[in-house]
Formats: sequence, structure tokens, C-alpha cells
Amino acid sequence: MSDSLGIVETKYFSFAEPPNELTLESGEKLGSITLAYETYGELNKEKTNAILILHAFSGDAHAAGFHKGARKPGWWDNMIGPGKAFDTEKYFIICSNVIGGCQGSTGPGSINPKTNKIYGLDFPMVTIKDMVNTQVQLINFLGIKKLLSAAGGSMGGMQVLQWMVNYPKKIRSAIPIATSAKHSPMQIAFNEVGRQAIMADSHWLNGNYYNKKKPVKGLSVARMVGHITYMSENSMESKFSRRLKTDRGPAKFTADFEVEGYLRYTGDSFTKRFDPNSYLYITKAMDLFDAAKGKPLSHVLKNLDAQVLVIAFKSDWLYPTSQSKEIVKACKMAGINATFCEIDSNYGHDAFLLEVEKEAHLIKHFLQKVYNDIED
Amino acid sequence: MSDSLGIVETKYFSFAEPPNELTLESGEKLGSITLAYETYGELNKEKTNAILILHAFSGDAHAAGFHKGARKPGWWDNMIGPGKAFDTEKYFIICSNVIGGCQGSTGPGSINPKTNKIYGLDFPMVTIKDMVNTQVQLINFLGIKKLLSAAGGSMGGMQVLQWMVNYPKKIRSAIPIATSAKHSPMQIAFNEVGRQAIMADSHWLNGNYYNKKKPVKGLSVARMVGHITYMSENSMESKFSRRLKTDRGPAKFTADFEVEGYLRYTGDSFTKRFDPNSYLYITKAMDLFDAAKGKPLSHVLKNLDAQVLVIAFKSDWLYPTSQSKEIVKACKMAGINATFCEIDSNYGHDAFLLEVEKEAHLIKHFLQKVYNDIED
Repeated sequence: MSDSLGIVETKYFSFAEPPNELTLESGEKLGSITLAYETYGELNKEKTNAILILHAFSGDAHAAGFHKGARKPGWWDNMIGPGKAFDTEKYFIICSNVIGGCQGSTGPGSINPKTNKIYGLDFPMVTIKDMVNTQVQLINFLGIKKLLSAAGGSMGGMQVLQWMVNYPKKIRSAIPIATSAKHSPMQIAFNEVGRQAIMADSHWLNGNYYNKKKPVKGLSVARMVGHITYMSENSMESKFSRRLKTDRGPAKFTADFEVEGYLRYTGDSFTKRFDPNSYLYITKAMDLFDAAKGKPLSHVLKNLDAQVLVIAFKSDWLYPTSQSKEIVKACKMAGINATFCEIDSNYGHDAFLLEVEKEAHLIKHFLQKVYNDIED
Repeated sequence: MSDSLGIVETKYFSFAEPPNELTLESGEKLGSITLAYETYGELNKEKTNAILILHAFSGDAHAAGFHKGARKPGWWDNMIGPGKAFDTEKYFIICSNVIGGCQGSTGPGSINPKTNKIYGLDFPMVTIKDMVNTQVQLINFLGIKKLLSAAGGSMGGMQVLQWMVNYPKKIRSAIPIATSAKHSPMQIAFNEVGRQAIMADSHWLNGNYYNKKKPVKGLSVARMVGHITYMSENSMESKFSRRLKTDRGPAKFTADFEVEGYLRYTGDSFTKRFDPNSYLYITKAMDLFDAAKGKPLSHVLKNLDAQVLVIAFKSDWLYPTSQSKEIVKACKMAGINATFCEIDSNYGHDAFLLEVEKEAHLIKHFLQKVYNDIED
């Protein structure tokens, strides 16, 4: 495919070696930190074309292109590449994994340098702000003073908001997608059920399951709950309706309906790529996130001089449009040049990964304008 | 309180002694069956004032009044009693527990007469139709030829629909509330997550946990998922918002937010009164329920000559109004005298238990009219 990035590789950036440790929001220090990241396209001479892509809860640094030998591309490949929304012919795209995760960055499954054992629950609590503070180090390391844009959906959007609040001079634009400035009790509740499912697994062992049996059943149930919230009533209806599985066995409480089989499969696959403790840490970071820390959001955005594009999706009931509108309202009250678009979609929260055509159109033109404004 | 029924007692009706066993929809026979039930008010001489109340998934026969020494009344006490919607000064109210349950009726925790051991997963699959078929035996035993009404919310509403389809000559009216003629894939998905949480618990032991440790953690997670779906975004916001617990401990991943503490408490209390295997059997009965069995619903209602009142609640996203409207539409197409009301409420699916004033008003007048029509 001419619009594919082809083969790409994950890189690793290590920093904050003692004694130059990064102090986390909790006050704890983490020792040397590694961030997994990928880049696509070329940084221009003026270093003005860099865009930071921020991933959602279970995402990773591999946003686009193919890893050697892989048949599946990165998670936002339909949006990133030559001629695509995030056009790698024009822009230098960076995607950074988050700390606390399990996809190559420092997290609860990493070795604690103080004990030479795997952290487990000795890993300090991390916040969305901590994630962004590490990304700033990566951007500095890459020699970029100001990003053309920071963009991401769901938890990626929370990181975008954190950039807007804490690094207002380091971004020319921001694209928070299908996200919220703070979780509602319902969003917290769904995350809490996932955490409880993991901690209910007898193999969880208070987080000390490394080198033992992984609490896969609990993690699988957690993912199933999450997955339901990512879809919509309509998308489930058109994908499964009430169709029965053709291979129903005689045993009781095996999957009867296709939707049941799909959920089990989804839960199961997830356990092969995700660390249960990372599930706990990252969902907790999302729940505790409050971009404005109790103040009016417009107040904490007052130093931002960037163009903002807020995108929501009509059938997204997990991150409803009302939450995006709160962000837009705060931007307007802070005098920020903000555009809002609600995309009509049946895909629910997953729409930010699937509703490519409309989303790409919006983002492409928005970025073009921001980029032209510099060149002018 | 003058409108309270005071002290009430659960009664037990046993029937279908071999060789007169009841054949279940699956073709299996169950041996002697016991139904727990309660009655309130007096049956009139003509036996025309009997109303059958049908409970939701986790309900029981104790719908109203107080058990001796109890501080909490039955689950629909605000609707049943002297002068209330289901007025015990005028009507004879019966509430029957369902088979497959764990509140005094025959279920997976009962003794299998063939082996003298607890059934566990040897208990046959039961359906909503099986539940109704046993209720008919109870009604016959009480000497009632025709019910004034059958009423219930959620799974209770499914039983009402089953009465409408299979016993059209035995009801003068029907009140299906916050229910559906068949589960959508999303409703199935939420139930399936609950089942998976139970079966993931290492204490579940393929259902053979009786006399051993009960799989309480899995059951608790299942209940938490369910509980979220019973509330609405708004009711959660007004009940909890993002308030933090005042007694947060230093340990990681304990409950930080009030909503988390509430969910844990709710899950925990549920495990003290419910059998995990009953959770599996009853949710499966709900998921497999299809009042019309694939035909148009209006076709299977064509023999019904009863007045129908369908009630839905605006913020109920688990059993959305659209599903109630399908029932109303089918009634209309079958030439049935059906009234529909969507009650404005913030309580979500729980509204059928909480939105008493509006619901009581509707039901009281509806029943009055049905009752007057006989007397005329």
C-alpha cells in the first residue's frame, strides 16, 4: 500500500538516572525511567512539524506501520501515514507509551533498582500529569521546543488536556478526542469493577504474581466490562444481534450467543498482551485525573495560546458529548480559539479508532491551518 | 404506620410430586417443586380480585410488610399495602418467588431427590416460561381461575409477558414495567460478564462449592457490574459525584471515591443473600427469553383479551424505552387495549422500585378501571 509507513520499530528513551530523578506527583522518585516510543516522518529543519500522539488506556507506542513480520499494523494506522490525517509526508509524528504501562515503558512489571526485584505494588502511584512530565523529557531529548500539536482519544485526550494545562507554551495546537476533563462516578464505577475483578482473582496475590501464574481470569473479566462500554447498543445490535453460536456445546453456561463468544475471545486475547497490575495503575490514574484540580477548567487554561479541536462521537455513552462540551466551554471562557465537532457515528467510544473518514477530514484541515499559521 | 401491612410471613407451596412431575421447557423433569410465596389482603368471594406480583432478577417472595423482627420491609412495600397502588384493602396480592432461585424455591442449591445431594450444575436449565408454568400451579392451588392482573418490573415484566403469551385467558390485565420482550446483545453482554466473574472465582469449582467456601468475590464483582447498569449517569452524579471517602487508607487500590466504597459494599451485601449458581441460571433464563420465539410479538399476543399498561422510565438505559415501545406496538397490532407511559425519572432502571409516586398513580387508576369493568 502506497499510504502505508511500511516497517517501523519501537525505540526506547531512558532518562532520570539518579541523582537526577524525576519527582512524581505523589512525591516519590522512580529512579531511571524508560519510555517506549515510535516516530514516523521527518523532523523539519526548524523543528516546527512535530506532533505528539497520545494513546488510550490499553494502547502502546506502536501507533502506525508494521512491526517486522507482523500482519496487523499499529492501532491508529488508518490515521497516520503518507497522505493520511497525520500526514507523515509533512509532519514528524511521535507516539509515546505511558509510564505505569506494560508495553516497554517503566511500570509495575519493571525491576525496582532498589531491590532488584519486580516492583509489583511497590511501584508508586502515577498520574496523567506524571505521564505527561515524562513525555516532555522525550520531546526535549528529540530537540523539539514546541509541538505543532498533541492529539489523542480517551485517556490520550486526558494527556492532551494535561499538556494544555501544564505546558501551554510547548504546544501550538491540541486535539482532545472522545475524552473528559475528569471522570464521572459512572466512569469510575466501571473502572473499579475491572480492578475488583483482577484483585478477586486468587492468582493476583496482592500483585506478586510475576514468575507465577498470571491472574488471567480476573483480567479477562475486567476487559470484557471495558469492552462493552466501548461499544454502543447499535453497534452491538448490528454486529451480533441475538445470533446463536453455531458450535454450542452441551455443557451449561458455555457461550450460547455470538456476543458471549466474542466477549470471551476479547477478554482472553487481552490477557496475552496486558499486565494486570498496569490495569490497576492506569485506570486509577484516569479516575483520579482532574485537569482543573477542582478549580474551574477555564481558569487553568488561561495561559494557553493554542488552537484547539475537540471531537466527540454521538453514540459514545462512556465519554458522552456533554463532557467534550465542558472542555469547549472552558476553552471559550478562557478566550481560546476552540472548534468543536460531534461526529455522527454508531460505533460508541470505539468510534475514535473506527470512524476514520470523518475524523481524518477534520484533523487534516485543522492541522493544515495550524501549520500554515506558523509559516505565514 | 397505618399504610403498612405489618408482620407478614413467607409460605411454601409444594407440588408436582412424582409421578405427576412438571416437564420443563428443556424436556427434563424436576421432581417435587417448592415455591416460596406471600399473600397480602383477602381474596373476595368471587375470587376476582387477585393480583400476581412478579419479582426482578434478585428479588424474592417478600414484596411487602415486615418479617418478624426485621427492620427492612419487602422490596415493593411502597407500592403494596392498605391504600397503596396495589391496595390490599381491595385486592388479594400474591408474590411468588421463581424456580432456579435461592430464596425458598427449588433451585440449584436444593437437594436433588435422585442423588440426595445438592444439585449444583445438575439442576436443569429453567426458562421464564418454566417460572410462569409453576406460578400457574400456585394460582390453581389458591383456587383462582383468572387473575385481575399480573404485574412486575425487569425480569418480573418478562414473566408478565409470558403470562400474556401463554395464559391469555387467565389474566384480565397485565402491567409489564421497565422490561423487554427479548434481551439485546448489550443486555446479554452485561449478564455474561457477571457469569464470567462468578465462574472465574477459584472457589466456584464448577458449581460444587456447597458446604465449601462460597465464591463470594466473583459474585460480588458480578453484582457490582449489575448495580452500575441499574443506575443512571445522573443518579450516580447526585448520589456520589467525585466525593472522596473520608477514611481512605494508605494501602493502594482501596476505595478512594465514595462510589467505589458503595459498589464494594453493595457487592459484599449481595453475597450474603444470593447463591452464585442461581445467578448463572436466572441470568441465562433472562438472556434466552424471547416472548415471541422469533415470530412477530403481535402474532403470539393474538389470543389475549386483557387491558395492558406498559411503563418505562426515561433514564433507564439498561431496559430503554424503545424496548417498551416494541411491546406497546405489538399489543396495538394485535388489537389489544394497551396504554403506554414513560415516566420522567433520574433513577435509571432502579426507577421501577424508586419512582413510587408517579408509578403508583398510574397503576392505581389502571387497576381501578379493570376492576370496575368486571363489576359492571
